[in-house]
Amino acid sequence: MTDRSLNLNLFIYPDGHHEAAWRYPGSQPDRILDLGWFQALAQRAEAAAFDAVFFADGPALAENIQYAPRFRLEPITLLAGIAAATSRIGLIATASTTYYEPYNLARLFASVDHLSHGRVGWNIVTTSSPAAARNFGLEEHPAHAARYARAEEFVDVVTKLWDSWEDDAIIADAASGLYADPAKIHAIEHVGRHFRVRGPLNAPRSPQGRPVYVQAGSSEDGRGFAARHAEAIFTAHQTLGAAQAFYADIKARALGVGRRPEHIKILPGLSPFIGSTQAEARALQEQFNALTQPAYSLQQLRQMLGVDFSGHDLDAPFPRHLIQPENSQAVASRFQVVLDIVDREQPTLRGLLHRLAGARGHFVMAGTPDQVADHIETWFTQGAADGFNVMPPWLPGGFEIFADEVVPILRRRGLFRSAYAGSTLRDHLGLPRPPSLYNQPARQLAS
Amino acid sequence: MTDRSLNLNLFIYPDGHHEAAWRYPGSQPDRILDLGWFQALAQRAEAAAFDAVFFADGPALAENIQYAPRFRLEPITLLAGIAAATSRIGLIATASTTYYEPYNLARLFASVDHLSHGRVGWNIVTTSSPAAARNFGLEEHPAHAARYARAEEFVDVVTKLWDSWEDDAIIADAASGLYADPAKIHAIEHVGRHFRVRGPLNAPRSPQGRPVYVQAGSSEDGRGFAARHAEAIFTAHQTLGAAQAFYADIKARALGVGRRPEHIKILPGLSPFIGSTQAEARALQEQFNALTQPAYSLQQLRQMLGVDFSGHDLDAPFPRHLIQPENSQAVASRFQVVLDIVDREQPTLRGLLHRLAGARGHFVMAGTPDQVADHIETWFTQGAADGFNVMPPWLPGGFEIFADEVVPILRRRGLFRSAYAGSTLRDHLGLPRPPSLYNQPARQLAS
Repeated sequence: MTDRSLNLNLFIYPDGHHEAAWRYPGSQPDRILDLGWFQALAQRAEAAAFDAVFFADGPALAENIQYAPRFRLEPITLLAGIAAATSRIGLIATASTTYYEPYNLARLFASVDHLSHGRVGWNIVTTSSPAAARNFGLEEHPAHAARYARAEEFVDVVTKLWDSWEDDAIIADAASGLYADPAKIHAIEHVGRHFRVRGPLNAPRSPQGRPVYVQAGSSEDGRGFAARHAEAIFTAHQTLGAAQAFYADIKARALGVGRRPEHIKILPGLSPFIGSTQAEARALQEQFNALTQPAYSLQQLRQMLGVDFSGHDLDAPFPRHLIQPENSQAVASRFQVVLDIVDREQPTLRGLLHRLAGARGHFVMAGTPDQVADHIETWFTQGAADGFNVMPPWLPGGFEIFADEVVPILRRRGLFRSAYAGSTLRDHLGLPRPPSLYNQPARQLAS
Repeated sequence: MTDRSLNLNLFIYPDGHHEAAWRYPGSQPDRILDLGWFQALAQRAEAAAFDAVFFADGPALAENIQYAPRFRLEPITLLAGIAAATSRIGLIATASTTYYEPYNLARLFASVDHLSHGRVGWNIVTTSSPAAARNFGLEEHPAHAARYARAEEFVDVVTKLWDSWEDDAIIADAASGLYADPAKIHAIEHVGRHFRVRGPLNAPRSPQGRPVYVQAGSSEDGRGFAARHAEAIFTAHQTLGAAQAFYADIKARALGVGRRPEHIKILPGLSPFIGSTQAEARALQEQFNALTQPAYSLQQLRQMLGVDFSGHDLDAPFPRHLIQPENSQAVASRFQVVLDIVDREQPTLRGLLHRLAGARGHFVMAGTPDQVADHIETWFTQGAADGFNVMPPWLPGGFEIFADEVVPILRRRGLFRSAYAGSTLRDHLGLPRPPSLYNQPARQLAS
């Protein structure tokens, strides 16, 4: 084993990440509202000693529900149900700083950290879907910078809430009748631009002290936020060079704010089609792409680029000139990724749709188990990644093949653990357990 | 078996309902943050064929945490963790219409209804603790009437969200590629005084259609709300007469708004100390009361009455004249209950504190299993109750005795089921599964 060990998450879309996964022969779309389905996936990932399962989220219905199961079970409750059927694997859910109240969100994650004995992570998002605004009384989705300003203060508030009980606040001395030491439970008295929150949290400090802070923004605001707060970053890159540049930038920014670079794990997405030969893997990918529906794919592309390409010839060269950087509805984290694919590969419109069908702009590859392991090793050893968010094209099969065929190779190469060394998600990621802010008298506590 | 069957919930306070439960010999206060603790309690209640487990909640820390474990795990996540270890018992959590956004709350409960295959209930509260306001940016807790006005609209919004997918919206036809029928997924376009919510919900309709609507208010506003919306009511009464009056009033109000009275189950709280003789039961209750701490009890009394009696002689007659109906900080649902105890029993201050130590104003009794069964049968058959929220003084022992000793008597008397007949909470309660509002073209859908 090298000094560093890969961190691997299983990123679960109910049916898999490829947009046509539910149409693949043998898929079981009738099971994807069943807790047992998700528990079994997490148990498989736990058997492979993965760091965590990971769930995306957004508080609005996807427009393309007509063509694929793009609904969302609420992921924090889903984690609680999965926690009950697993014992070691980490549990990461996405939740929005734009559309939650910090006191409610702090409670939900702290509770699941208790229920799971310290296995929870929070993927901090500001929500990119403009449709969410109209589910929360807003006419317009707040602008990117405004969302990040709120997110910054939101993280400050929930951090204080999670720290508001010192670790040794509970005494539970039946003889004297003292249950908790009130001097170790702190009102946070937060007064800021977006929030006024008195606190304390109404539950004891959770096993990890704070859930692990995960983040996925790649904009300038997002990178600054990540450098200050993130302990794991989920990111999308199509080339080694782009991934290396991002990796170097984030680690440098972390150093710049006084953090240790190894305390921010950078985890690009990876969606592998695996075959016993490369030709077989490519044929499998083609089989999936043949099941895609342009109406779905075009809606997704519109969200990424802010341009509707419906009605354009699918088999003509992609009309690059229609993309403008200022397209306001675009998802910042995907805009440049898609543009780079277009400029590098000069695809047809259909070709671009197929390129994005597998994982929405994340890296998709078709190869043998050794080729997939080579890719992982290269990015891991060449300064592009600390690990990966594995995004199986379909489930459970697409993950089973990865676990059965690729993971053993990674172990033989000394890149990945064969068993858990610790019991919390912080243990798996090699992250320290933060002391409570309120247990450091010298530290400035003012908001 | 009579036509009617008792409905029995297990109301879980982590260590039990008596304020000194955690000090009782053999209690395990170190286990009450452990999911396994709650799963085992729910499994015991399920083995007794109880309708549901029930959790209270409030988004602020209780002031008397110094003296007892009055923290709160977030109960919706707790239900999800319990769902994973049970298969039939209903799962009811409390959540606040004052401090949640309706879209977030609708998602949380719908998800757990999916994960539990249709076993969830929502106890709708407007939150009585003034401290909550300051965790959500408000200087003052909204007034009672304002909270109920928001609650009314909140329930309207979440009902529309839960109905926004018709039951047969999912097609999942892999051959054609049609996953869902967009004509059966409805934007709710709610525009009201408190909320603007476009919808639809971002998940399919849940197994029960809507989680069961539970409620606990007993004020005039609360009763009107209950008559319109509640399917189960948790209520506190000290005498048969008071319970009968409440029961008759609610059932009449339900009829008045065109609902079937049997679709509102009225469930008073009952906290029994059980012994093989009445003397033994009373001695047990005395043992608990001897463990109470006046500082805790006085804080609780202050919340109920809006008056601080600290410093008064505990063994002098209770200073009744200090109570004023207009004490603004009082909890409406408890104020009259406490006043009635005072006027009927003329206790000392300490005596009153002991009367409230068991279950915060709910009915506490000490008796043999037959006496407890007699009480239940009397209230059930004399128009005072459809069932009970059983509030064991301590856990798990206080519930085990009830399940082992009282439940068999209720069964022999034909009052309570010996096994579940259905699989959802609506089944257990004899409640219909509501069709979607959007599946009734003749019905007025305007908000």
